[in-house]
Amino acid sequence: MRPTVLIASYLEPEHINRIRAEAPAVDVLYRPDLIGAPRFQADHTAPVKRTPQQEAEWRALLAEAEILFDFDISHRENLPALAPKLKWIQATSAGIGQAVKRFGYDQTGWRFTTASGVHARPLAEYCLMVMLMFIKNYPVMDAQKRAHHWRRFNNSELRGLTVGIVGLGRIGRDIAQVCQTFGMTVLACRRSRANPPPTVDVQFPPERLDDLLPQVDFLVLCAPHTPDTDGLLSAERIRLMKTGSILINIARGALVDHSELKRALRAGHLGGAALDVTDPEPLPADDPLWDMPNVIISHHSASTADTENGKLTDLFIRNLHRYLNDEPLENLLDIERMY
Amino acid sequence: MRPTVLIASYLEPEHINRIRAEAPAVDVLYRPDLIGAPRFQADHTAPVKRTPQQEAEWRALLAEAEILFDFDISHRENLPALAPKLKWIQATSAGIGQAVKRFGYDQTGWRFTTASGVHARPLAEYCLMVMLMFIKNYPVMDAQKRAHHWRRFNNSELRGLTVGIVGLGRIGRDIAQVCQTFGMTVLACRRSRANPPPTVDVQFPPERLDDLLPQVDFLVLCAPHTPDTDGLLSAERIRLMKTGSILINIARGALVDHSELKRALRAGHLGGAALDVTDPEPLPADDPLWDMPNVIISHHSASTADTENGKLTDLFIRNLHRYLNDEPLENLLDIERMY
Repeated sequence: MRPTVLIASYLEPEHINRIRAEAPAVDVLYRPDLIGAPRFQADHTAPVKRTPQQEAEWRALLAEAEILFDFDISHRENLPALAPKLKWIQATSAGIGQAVKRFGYDQTGWRFTTASGVHARPLAEYCLMVMLMFIKNYPVMDAQKRAHHWRRFNNSELRGLTVGIVGLGRIGRDIAQVCQTFGMTVLACRRSRANPPPTVDVQFPPERLDDLLPQVDFLVLCAPHTPDTDGLLSAERIRLMKTGSILINIARGALVDHSELKRALRAGHLGGAALDVTDPEPLPADDPLWDMPNVIISHHSASTADTENGKLTDLFIRNLHRYLNDEPLENLLDIERMY
Repeated sequence: MRPTVLIASYLEPEHINRIRAEAPAVDVLYRPDLIGAPRFQADHTAPVKRTPQQEAEWRALLAEAEILFDFDISHRENLPALAPKLKWIQATSAGIGQAVKRFGYDQTGWRFTTASGVHARPLAEYCLMVMLMFIKNYPVMDAQKRAHHWRRFNNSELRGLTVGIVGLGRIGRDIAQVCQTFGMTVLACRRSRANPPPTVDVQFPPERLDDLLPQVDFLVLCAPHTPDTDGLLSAERIRLMKTGSILINIARGALVDHSELKRALRAGHLGGAALDVTDPEPLPADDPLWDMPNVIISHHSASTADTENGKLTDLFIRNLHRYLNDEPLENLLDIERMY
């Protein structure tokens, strides 16, 4: 029996062709008319609209699928009933643990592979951009530009500043490497007891996070959202952060106490924040964060690069070969740890 | 005879104390009440106001000075008459060739040492910041923030993009190194026929600049302002640049035809510009550049870091030792080449 792959979110034809050419032992079902039209390149959560006829066609495809490329956002709770042959889902995101639990997929016996690594470089570049914007006083440049007012001012360099990275997966390690290149001191907090990589100056276990917080000029959150990290940056912990320090959240909004975050930003205890993710998300139109000049908001798009679908396809093809050869899959989700 | 050093622009007391401690063989004259009060850290062009009594005191100091730390902005044309013992000026800027010619200092026999190298790191960081802001669609992020509108979008990575660097002094070489670290292709145009550094993929002589221009996503100008580079980025050359490419000018405004620059930005031929320097400078309040959303203006402040005076003091102390030992000075200005 040839395994059937169903593509459940948009990929460009060139990537579909590559999958077909490089994994000829599988049947690839791809019906872009039955899935959401991307609103931007590498959009994997585009809303789906189908006529009853189209919905019947889609369900017929699901019934055949052994492998899904991406979650089917049009069928969440009832996917196990609609996809009886399903064995493996290749996700297009790294942070899928919460969703797998929420929809009960952890009870199915399916395997899940994450997109861990695909977004590391765009996110490391985003972190560097916002760190530079804060130390180069971009808000001052911009305010003077809007006022048509030329006035010199001074700014800083990264060398000698300290970054604290919470979560040392692919993203955190790439950020550590970039920060080391620019002469920063790198502190990291991670759950693993493994030796720190050479790019990390001091590694803290989770129970010593409170010792890291007062030392850092920039705090980068890039840990998965799990029960252990929910509310990790509590009001008490925000108060432990250094006066004038900057929060960068590229993890999930639920890691941060947003009431205290807003209070600390208004009071000047925090110098600024760059939020790729918020709580709630999308951020409501009346949220005070929108109007804070020391806040950068990136609309959960910092990881969405035009290189993404090419990298996802590379990963999926590697994993198809492993799957067909009964080898361990790359980026296999650990259901217990949730990442 | 102990040489007399006169400090002609503001330095923090800690730096004055270091000069006195590390070069005890010179007399250091420092009268902050007679020089301009800095408007920001590392301000070396602060306006000077003196009472007649203070002016007399300052002239008495000039009459004794064998070495000046920084140009005396209160006495330009008449400095040779007021400072008969002067032999060496340590500048606080890298681009001093034009000023030395303009004030006729090239006829004095004085030596000049530039601040070349001091500003390389802040300027390389600035270039990286603005490149990232353009490829990450910061103008979109910011417009959506001002509209309180959460919407996802896609952006790019630096890897695979091409930068063209015009001028390969300390600043240009530091930018090349940073760009190479991020996986960019690095083209450079330089006057020297020396072998390219390992961070440069292809090196172009000045007469082949026109071949470089159509190839680059980012064009960085960091060449000195000399008769050869005046008007270097002419209207014709701007038209040779790739559609959607970005100009970054950290050299001097006079290198660029600003009329054509504005036309190309309005027409969308250029995707954007980051201008640390402009022509004229300061930029007049009614200049159209202020209101262009795809233009970043940094008020000739990109190089002004709070680390600057420390680095200038390090350089000055090294040069004092060389001066006292009759060794070649570091960063000696070549009067003919003007850099």
